[in-house]
Amino acid sequence: MNKPIGVLPPFLVLDPVLQSWLIEDIGRGDRTTQSLLTANPKLGTAKWIAKVPGIVAGLPIAARVFQLLNNQVSFSPVISEGQKCQPGQIIAEINGSLDALLMGERVALNLAMRLSGIATLTHQYTDKIADLATKFVDTRKTTPGLRILEKYATTIGGAINHRMGLDDAVMIKDNHIAAAGSIGEAISCIRSQIPYPLTIEVETENLEQVEEALKYQADIIMLDNMSLANMDMAVKLIRQHNELIKIEASGNITLETIRAVAETGVDYISSSAPITQAKWLDLSMKIE
Amino acid sequence: MNKPIGVLPPFLVLDPVLQSWLIEDIGRGDRTTQSLLTANPKLGTAKWIAKVPGIVAGLPIAARVFQLLNNQVSFSPVISEGQKCQPGQIIAEINGSLDALLMGERVALNLAMRLSGIATLTHQYTDKIADLATKFVDTRKTTPGLRILEKYATTIGGAINHRMGLDDAVMIKDNHIAAAGSIGEAISCIRSQIPYPLTIEVETENLEQVEEALKYQADIIMLDNMSLANMDMAVKLIRQHNELIKIEASGNITLETIRAVAETGVDYISSSAPITQAKWLDLSMKIE
Amino acid sequence: MNKPIGVLPPFLVLDPVLQSWLIEDIGRGDRTTQSLLTANPKLGTAKWIAKVPGIVAGLPIAARVFQLLNNQVSFSPVISEGQKCQPGQIIAEINGSLDALLMGERVALNLAMRLSGIATLTHQYTDKIADLATKFVDTRKTTPGLRILEKYATTIGGAINHRMGLDDAVMIKDNHIAAAGSIGEAISCIRSQIPYPLTIEVETENLEQVEEALKYQADIIMLDNMSLANMDMAVKLIRQHNELIKIEASGNITLETIRAVAETGVDYISSSAPITQAKWLDLSMKIE
Amino acid sequence: MNKPIGVLPPFLVLDPVLQSWLIEDIGRGDRTTQSLLTANPKLGTAKWIAKVPGIVAGLPIAARVFQLLNNQVSFSPVISEGQKCQPGQIIAEINGSLDALLMGERVALNLAMRLSGIATLTHQYTDKIADLATKFVDTRKTTPGLRILEKYATTIGGAINHRMGLDDAVMIKDNHIAAAGSIGEAISCIRSQIPYPLTIEVETENLEQVEEALKYQADIIMLDNMSLANMDMAVKLIRQHNELIKIEASGNITLETIRAVAETGVDYISSSAPITQAKWLDLSMKIE
Amino acid sequence: MNKPIGVLPPFLVLDPVLQSWLIEDIGRGDRTTQSLLTANPKLGTAKWIAKVPGIVAGLPIAARVFQLLNNQVSFSPVISEGQKCQPGQIIAEINGSLDALLMGERVALNLAMRLSGIATLTHQYTDKIADLATKFVDTRKTTPGLRILEKYATTIGGAINHRMGLDDAVMIKDNHIAAAGSIGEAISCIRSQIPYPLTIEVETENLEQVEEALKYQADIIMLDNMSLANMDMAVKLIRQHNELIKIEASGNITLETIRAVAETGVDYISSSAPITQAKWLDLSMKIE
Amino acid sequence: MNKPIGVLPPFLVLDPVLQSWLIEDIGRGDRTTQSLLTANPKLGTAKWIAKVPGIVAGLPIAARVFQLLNNQVSFSPVISEGQKCQPGQIIAEINGSLDALLMGERVALNLAMRLSGIATLTHQYTDKIADLATKFVDTRKTTPGLRILEKYATTIGGAINHRMGLDDAVMIKDNHIAAAGSIGEAISCIRSQIPYPLTIEVETENLEQVEEALKYQADIIMLDNMSLANMDMAVKLIRQHNELIKIEASGNITLETIRAVAETGVDYISSSAPITQAKWLDLSMKIE
Repeated sequence: MNKPIGVLPPFLVLDPVLQSWLIEDIGRGDRTTQSLLTANPKLGTAKWIAKVPGIVAGLPIAARVFQLLNNQVSFSPVISEGQKCQPGQIIAEINGSLDALLMGERVALNLAMRLSGIATLTHQYTDKIADLATKFVDTRKTTPGLRILEKYATTIGGAINHRMGLDDAVMIKDNHIAAAGSIGEAISCIRSQIPYPLTIEVETENLEQVEEALKYQADIIMLDNMSLANMDMAVKLIRQHNELIKIEASGNITLETIRAVAETGVDYISSSAPITQAKWLDLSMKIE
Repeated sequence: MNKPIGVLPPFLVLDPVLQSWLIEDIGRGDRTTQSLLTANPKLGTAKWIAKVPGIVAGLPIAARVFQLLNNQVSFSPVISEGQKCQPGQIIAEINGSLDALLMGERVALNLAMRLSGIATLTHQYTDKIADLATKFVDTRKTTPGLRILEKYATTIGGAINHRMGLDDAVMIKDNHIAAAGSIGEAISCIRSQIPYPLTIEVETENLEQVEEALKYQADIIMLDNMSLANMDMAVKLIRQHNELIKIEASGNITLETIRAVAETGVDYISSSAPITQAKWLDLSMKIE
Repeated sequence: MNKPIGVLPPFLVLDPVLQSWLIEDIGRGDRTTQSLLTANPKLGTAKWIAKVPGIVAGLPIAARVFQLLNNQVSFSPVISEGQKCQPGQIIAEINGSLDALLMGERVALNLAMRLSGIATLTHQYTDKIADLATKFVDTRKTTPGLRILEKYATTIGGAINHRMGLDDAVMIKDNHIAAAGSIGEAISCIRSQIPYPLTIEVETENLEQVEEALKYQADIIMLDNMSLANMDMAVKLIRQHNELIKIEASGNITLETIRAVAETGVDYISSSAPITQAKWLDLSMKIE
Repeated sequence: MNKPIGVLPPFLVLDPVLQSWLIEDIGRGDRTTQSLLTANPKLGTAKWIAKVPGIVAGLPIAARVFQLLNNQVSFSPVISEGQKCQPGQIIAEINGSLDALLMGERVALNLAMRLSGIATLTHQYTDKIADLATKFVDTRKTTPGLRILEKYATTIGGAINHRMGLDDAVMIKDNHIAAAGSIGEAISCIRSQIPYPLTIEVETENLEQVEEALKYQADIIMLDNMSLANMDMAVKLIRQHNELIKIEASGNITLETIRAVAETGVDYISSSAPITQAKWLDLSMKIE
Repeated sequence: MNKPIGVLPPFLVLDPVLQSWLIEDIGRGDRTTQSLLTANPKLGTAKWIAKVPGIVAGLPIAARVFQLLNNQVSFSPVISEGQKCQPGQIIAEINGSLDALLMGERVALNLAMRLSGIATLTHQYTDKIADLATKFVDTRKTTPGLRILEKYATTIGGAINHRMGLDDAVMIKDNHIAAAGSIGEAISCIRSQIPYPLTIEVETENLEQVEEALKYQADIIMLDNMSLANMDMAVKLIRQHNELIKIEASGNITLETIRAVAETGVDYISSSAPITQAKWLDLSMKIE
Repeated sequence: MNKPIGVLPPFLVLDPVLQSWLIEDIGRGDRTTQSLLTANPKLGTAKWIAKVPGIVAGLPIAARVFQLLNNQVSFSPVISEGQKCQPGQIIAEINGSLDALLMGERVALNLAMRLSGIATLTHQYTDKIADLATKFVDTRKTTPGLRILEKYATTIGGAINHRMGLDDAVMIKDNHIAAAGSIGEAISCIRSQIPYPLTIEVETENLEQVEEALKYQADIIMLDNMSLANMDMAVKLIRQHNELIKIEASGNITLETIRAVAETGVDYISSSAPITQAKWLDLSMKIE
């Protein structure tokens, strides 16, 4: 299987959001920069510098942010997206209108710092199981408005995305099972209403639920908060049934436990930690 | 398997579009109705009447259209969504502010006529194979801006939806195979980049391609424009491989050919005809 | 009188809608195309081919759709907008970034197929009366969100547009007459409230109503569902009154009846059929 | 002919603009009011008081502004829309949440002051010709973004609206005549491309142009900057031709000249003065 | 202190509004211009001419309006933004696609006429006190939707802006004092809730209120409708307290009174007159 | 000085963003929940439970999220906004339509978890200096799109906001000084262009810069990365000059260093840490 390379939607999709973020910061105008530079526009060169080690993510987004302010700005990465940076290292060089550089600085940096923080923490998880077939996946615990970008950042850190929203896959949890009456009734009802290429995942807490999920042809079975021993048994049970069914482990995955979980042979391990526990990677911009 | 009941997204998702459609028609104001009724507002009762037989679809949308103009309007279906109507039959009764009834009439009717037309034609297809396990599915050939509603209408006509957009499932066509080099390379490359619950469908034109799709673990195999004999063989081949793989037949499906295709045992038959070939169902509104 | 050439509003007006239609299809990203081409972008050439005969409409819109994805794409019509196509004929050639070609394909084709279907059916109507002074006009029965484009397509098919919305002309129907008390009161009330260049059309069902409409200076008189004999009399009555008053015939116009109606000497014949009864013209795109 | 009563489009059309205007003023929050009242919300009563005499316009808009902030606010006009106010007179009373009253005050007053200023000046013009058949009409010289509201204000002042935009009527000016080659060619070309209910107005500067406009069946003839003597002749010429053709006088209309122009028998006199020359009517709000 | 040069926010902020204004006028298309020029596009040259003397403002905005319609249009000011124009003087020359020139004309001129009218009247005020240290400032009485542009116009006329909205500074008026109980409680409560760089201005009507405002450390003290004698005393009182506190005079400032008020030594004099009392500066466009 | 209570802008401002966040998650519909509950709607009760100790923030936002889906949902906080929660403690109870509860769960929780994480970490900082006069303030390092909410969360944690964007205060940094030539020229140029109530802050790195900032009347002086000894001297220097000038310390503030910095007597200490270094507070929702 190839490595994830980080795929962003076309700018047609992203631009309206990027513009709204610039407007959030600029408001009615950048009082400082525009007062100084409107009458005397200048060109400038800026360098982005890493203050701490980590995985850099978000450079194509940062470039676009500056270009939305002034399409003559050039943004040249020195470190490639997804590569490691060291403290003090220059990661990009930006040339263009000085007011665009100063007005776009904070939004572009805020995005890159957040996304790099996510990629960096994700990478710590994926690194633990890099030699195994199990893949590390994210969740829907993402900052509102940044779903696509934060999930992009986890792929830059080596993860695979889980579903992007409530509409591109089905996840049957305890509340849904309760509403339907049983796993079987839930799967049957949902299968008849959804676009047929969509898969149905069922959250299971024990082997009885795993068996019911198998019986009603769940496409993906999540082993939620199971002991390693139970996971072992569940994996065997599912593999015997049909090798195409995907198995996901979830619940309290940490850097300490991830490898043992992966060694049970599950296909995927999901965790929100790389997004909810990540600190921003410290980056700064210097004008020359 | 349960029957499709027609599931719409919450109005939070639909309202902005419905509002834009009312504004498209009303523009700077309804010169006729508002000139007469602004100074002398009146209540009124309207009836919606079918002029031709068909399957009624779109009543919840029509109701919302009127309520966006005036939230005191009540819209009471006489015929349930998805039921058959006969010429001259009253299908709904609407009560409320007369100006809302007259200003919303055209948009509400245009939607219901278009959606009912789609449901009616869809139903002719699904009726042909109602006793078989094969399901009839739609495509992405939908009127721009009406994707969700037109696909809703096909489910009201008894169909199952195919993917809703380019982002909730993968469809590998000849152009993609050419770009990747082979079916195997295409599947492998795509699988590593996409959210893992998403399925990969491969369009195949012959048995060699079917075998390659099986080898690289396509989730869905489309038999595109194959002869019935070839379809038969393909279905057997795939079933032997793994019963969880879904099979879709596509290409020049007509009311005459659909049953024979279904009898090959494919899981799904897709056609754009219910959307691209449907005429609007003739409905009218009378104020009492 | 010159022939209609098809006038679209400036792209400033159309672009937001075209963008929303691309986003409707692309959603969070084109999983298939972008997974394959993001790391290895390619240029490509596509041809649009007609599968059935008809009148081609929508090429300028299709071109814009691709260019909104990538402004380097060139779209070169082989058949001019409004010309006839034959099965198998190439109607346009498109060059540019392969991912833009594949991501924009469905939206661009859906629009061109719908608009060409309308132009084709419209042309069948206008062809029946091409040698007469009577003009064929459309109605407000249009797909919500596509009013401007579908009415553009009828002009490509040789029709003249009726009003574009509720705000650019007045149409007094039976419900309005009932609300006002009489045709005279309706005209008088409305005339005093509307922008003065706007015209007032009155729907009449008999000669008495025609006379009242004349008395109160309607600008346009619609003869609704009248017999040919009544239409003859109405036309004479109106022409005697003032030659500047426009006469429109409406109601159950078919390809069979349109010529006889036109020969009564009415100025305009209106019908929703070219929009509500049209099937999409089958077009496809091939990448070379 | 009835008097204009002031017709606004439905709030569905107006609300997005009103909301954007509130957001323009409130921005990220009302620092003063919200700091004081968030923890200790209060109800309040406000009175709107006129400081100068004039015609009041915009009360329904002002009411909506407050209600968009808090739908419990009641706005009770003391003087009816379109009536005269005297200095010191209370024109409306507003009850509800004090923070909504204070946050909405400026936007609501700004609108009412601007619209009342327009209605007041318009009324000075219409008053001069109130006993004549000639009507006073506005132009497209309106503040960007306020076209509908400012033209509503002129009707409150007794005027009739001219066209609302470039799309609901045709106005052929010298530049268009030059581009087309002649008045005749311009009318002929335009007539074949536009929705048929739309009228065509031609700007004429002398009797030769009037004759050409008549020959090519202009619906409306504007006499632009003509002497009274020329206007007299033009009116006679046009009336002889066809009594349905409308005549508009325009150019340097003042409170001093309007009556003499009206007495030439033209149907309409247009002027931008009530919008471009109006001062805001001074209104203030007092909390009790 | 430098002179205000007129600082606009980046076009990223302004473009959506400018586009909405063009769409307000163009609607579904310019029937006149597009009917003539769509099939036969032409280039053209236009001149903007002043009909009356004044201060020109809004040229960069006008240029952008045309370029949003067609980015090949060049707009060349002949008179610089902020300079005086004389009747008959050419103020700008515009070259490009004739349809863009004609479609953008009204919106561009309406803006420039409004903004120039404001700049012209503002300049009459600032001219009266040009040799004094006191600055003339605007208020929040601006046309809804045009806050940024109208306040830009006052700076072109030589004024300084007051706060731009309810969120970038605090203004404590009588209603707020009443709600809080006293000036002291109002300042104390607000100071603890707002972004710390924001200043707090207190409206005072007498010396007791001035003293209380000083005691609770208001940043700016407004002397509202005070006599010149009281203003004199208030200025002395405040200057003795702390020279960094800013003093603003407000209330019934006229061209006759402004100088005497300034000579009391206040830092700022605020008035809404340049915005609420300005007439549009008469400008016209001629195509060559 | 009162304590910050947490002031949110009116929902008019927030709703469009909250709606976009719900749509980001729901997309074309919640396949799981809506398939189960559309035909059989149910009421439900949910509890929000804290899994870890912290400061709860975001409950009013969470309530609004559910109500935007269904305005009948009631959201009852058990713990007040800004109070401490303990592991296992119920913090809110939600009643209403089960599909609204399930569809809104993730967005509402994501917001509350993020905001509570920020409030919790902020509180650790403010707690260190709670008995001192120095205030803790945030920065513009906020997640794009969440500026207002994240800064609201810091006030819930006991901080004061710094400026909200580039437009409500001036901050002169080294790049601006370089562009202007000197601190003095920068202040002078900016002061003449900005709304007069706005304050100017200057970043200083040494006592020479502090003296220049004082000379040119900076309103706020930031001591950036100074040693404690230098800070001491700077504070004395500034206080002697004018007690109204505000002093902010910034640069590498940690939980260990904050108290010593505060004890130098600065007015404000700014740090991005509560936003860039916060982990989400773990909250979960249980349906009963």
